[in-house]
Amino acid sequence: MSDTQFTHYKKKAMASLNRALDRGEVDTKIIPILDTINSLPYFYTTSSCAGRIMVLEIPSIGKKKEAKILGKWHHKIGSQEMLDCITNAIQGQIWFLSQSPIFHVGVKSMKETDSLLSIALASGFKNSGIKTKGKKIIIEITSTERVDAPLGRDGEMMCSKKYLEFLIEIANYTIERGDKKINRLTKNIFSLQC
Amino acid sequence: MSDTQFTHYKKKAMASLNRALDRGEVDTKIIPILDTINSLPYFYTTSSCAGRIMVLEIPSIGKKKEAKILGKWHHKIGSQEMLDCITNAIQGQIWFLSQSPIFHVGVKSMKETDSLLSIALASGFKNSGIKTKGKKIIIEITSTERVDAPLGRDGEMMCSKKYLEFLIEIANYTIERGDKKINRLTKNIFSLQC
Repeated sequence: MSDTQFTHYKKKAMASLNRALDRGEVDTKIIPILDTINSLPYFYTTSSCAGRIMVLEIPSIGKKKEAKILGKWHHKIGSQEMLDCITNAIQGQIWFLSQSPIFHVGVKSMKETDSLLSIALASGFKNSGIKTKGKKIIIEITSTERVDAPLGRDGEMMCSKKYLEFLIEIANYTIERGDKKINRLTKNIFSLQC
Repeated sequence: MSDTQFTHYKKKAMASLNRALDRGEVDTKIIPILDTINSLPYFYTTSSCAGRIMVLEIPSIGKKKEAKILGKWHHKIGSQEMLDCITNAIQGQIWFLSQSPIFHVGVKSMKETDSLLSIALASGFKNSGIKTKGKKIIIEITSTERVDAPLGRDGEMMCSKKYLEFLIEIANYTIERGDKKINRLTKNIFSLQC
């Protein structure tokens, strides 16, 4: 990719990030990481997330693009928060999701990918890799912890409160683990700057 | 990648596939796809799976590499099969997984990736993309349907039989959907050969 092309993509990504920051859509705990990566000459961040717990309503499995979000949290939750949001379920499958942090980083060329990818893997993001999208080279930094569990359908729960609490316990542990990995990654990426 | 390098990687992958075929470790429903891809000059298949339902015992979330497999099926299952395998759970978290088919295809160079990737996406494998691993370019063909649900821990179930049946119903639907996508992909890849 030429310098001009890379500068163009980075500029566009930075404008989009600034709009998201203005709207308060970026979780505060990943702002230092994003800032550090974006201060590096050959990298820029695109869609990234601090890790989250979600309750969705979808027509059927695999149709998450048609999802209605019943609840979304970037922090640990209690069972009441989840029970409250489930009362809004009407039609379709109800799913409980817990996702690890994910960062997408645009890179100028393949030769710059090694340093960041090694740091990501060493920081515990074991599911990281390089993806390409047209001419763009993207490092995806993510981890293996996840929950994708159906809870019920058409407003009716198919599991007990005991099971929900078990799910929440595991999801909260995932958030805690994700936070630790974010801290480790932030420190390690900072060293790239020095 | 040079012709010599590509031929070397393809030869190694084919030897490994032949060993897996000899040991009966390749699900019969993906053999035609693997054969067709491997007959094309610029591609070769590496680790691939027809889609599966699994019950695992793991120390904790994210540690799937340390998993003990309690049950694994490449076809639809009934609740008794699952209940039987769960009786072998002793220590750690018990997880229920349903995974869509996945194919990894080595490609000679970036310019050959477009045709196969378009076919994968058009065949319903919406989560497909290009990954790089050292010098190797790998097309990962896969879909978004998945279940990753914890069931219990230390031999104790945290969910009801009703919930298990609900999970199995969804997982079986995933296998059915996966089979249809495999058929569509096989037909569409076959057209690449002509």
